[in-house]
Amino acid sequence: MQAVFWMTAGLLCLAPGLSSAQRPRPCRSPLLYTGSFTVGTQNEKLWAVGNYAYDAVNQRIYLGEVGRYNNNSFIYDVLFLFDEGVLYEINRQNQTCVKEALHSDFHPMQVPKDAAFVSQVVLGSNSSLVQGLLVNNWRGYIPGITDHYFVSFTEFGCFPVLMLIQTKDFGWVGLSYYNNILGADPNCFIPPPFCEDATLVENEDGKVTNFFSVFH
Amino acid sequence: MQAVFWMTAGLLCLAPGLSSAQRPRPCRSPLLYTGSFTVGTQNEKLWAVGNYAYDAVNQRIYLGEVGRYNNNSFIYDVLFLFDEGVLYEINRQNQTCVKEALHSDFHPMQVPKDAAFVSQVVLGSNSSLVQGLLVNNWRGYIPGITDHYFVSFTEFGCFPVLMLIQTKDFGWVGLSYYNNILGADPNCFIPPPFCEDATLVENEDGKVTNFFSVFH
Repeated sequence: MQAVFWMTAGLLCLAPGLSSAQRPRPCRSPLLYTGSFTVGTQNEKLWAVGNYAYDAVNQRIYLGEVGRYNNNSFIYDVLFLFDEGVLYEINRQNQTCVKEALHSDFHPMQVPKDAAFVSQVVLGSNSSLVQGLLVNNWRGYIPGITDHYFVSFTEFGCFPVLMLIQTKDFGWVGLSYYNNILGADPNCFIPPPFCEDATLVENEDGKVTNFFSVFH
Repeated sequence: MQAVFWMTAGLLCLAPGLSSAQRPRPCRSPLLYTGSFTVGTQNEKLWAVGNYAYDAVNQRIYLGEVGRYNNNSFIYDVLFLFDEGVLYEINRQNQTCVKEALHSDFHPMQVPKDAAFVSQVVLGSNSSLVQGLLVNNWRGYIPGITDHYFVSFTEFGCFPVLMLIQTKDFGWVGLSYYNNILGADPNCFIPPPFCEDATLVENEDGKVTNFFSVFH
C-alpha cells in the first residue's frame, strides 16, 4: 500500500514533480488555535466528531467529542494540562469530574521532523483564488507507536488537514481537521467549577497517547 | 455510522450551524477541467493514483491511473467518448488498444440533486486568506448503485474534493481529488494513432460505472 506513494502519477496529461529546492520542509502548526475534527477507523469500531482548542504556549489541549465506539454512543470531554501534569475528564451533564495524573510530555502539533515528503497538491483548484488550498503530504513510520502514517498539512499556516495512522486495534485511523481559527477562548482551558473538588487519581501508567501527542 | 453525521458537534467552544437561507445547494462541477486523484478501499484490495481530464461539453473523460489491485500492479489508461458510444482502453507501452461499445449515458460531475446537506467547513483555516478552503459536505443513498455515499465539493467553483462510497466489493471506497485546473489539453481526448485499427468489441453489457458516472 505504501509503495504506491512512490509511484509518480506522471501519466499522459500531467507530470508533477518538485525539484529539491522547492521541496517543503516539515512545519510546526500555529501556537494557539481552535478547530474541529472527524475521526473514523477502518474496522468501523470508532466514529466521532468533535472540537479542540490547542495552546502550545501554555502546553494545554481541550478536546470535546461525541461518537460511537463498538456501537455505543459516547461523549468524551477532556482537558490536558501538560505543564501541571494533570488531565480532567469532564462530564458536564452529571457535573462530575475525574482528575488524573498526566506523565506525558507535551508534543507540539507538527509534521514529524523525519517524515518523508510525498507530494504537494492543491485541494480544489488554483485556477482561481479562494478555490484552492495548497497542502503538503508526508509519510513515515513510528515503530510501536503508529506504525505507518500519512499526514497532510497546509503549506501556508501549517494547519493539519488529514492524518491516516496505521494501528493494531483499529486498522487505519483517519482524522480530518477543519474549521481552524487562530486563537482560542481561554475559558476552554479552565476546569469547570465542579472539578475543583476532584481528587487526583493515578491511572494505570499515567501516560496518554492522543492524536496531538502521537508525533514527536 | 451515518447517524453520527446528524449529531452536531455543538460542544463547549464551537456551535456550528447554518440557517436554511445560508444552506448551500447541490452544485455541478465546471464543464472542462483536468486534475488528479487517489483512490483507496477499506478492504485494501485497491489503491491507485491517477489523472483525469473531464469535458462535459463534448461528453468525454480521460482517465490514466497506476495502482495495485489484489496485490498486483496495474496501469489503466482509458478514454470514454460518451457521445460516440465508445471507450478505448489504451496500452501505451505495447501500443495496443481495445475499442469497446459504451452504452452508458454521460453523467455530469455533480452533487446529486437529492443529496442531504451535512455541513459546510473550512479545510485549513479562514483566519487568513489562502490558508483555507470552504467546502460543502453531502450525504445520500443510491440503493443498488453506491449504497451510502458522502461527498465533499468546494463552495467556490464546485470542484470535487472527497468522495466516500459504500460498496459491496470493497467496503468504503475513498476518492480524493486535487490539482484541478480549469481547461484541458484537447489531445487528451483524441485516441492515439495505434487505436485507429482497433475493431469495436461488445463487452458483457456495454455499461460502465466509473466514479464520474456513478452520480446522476
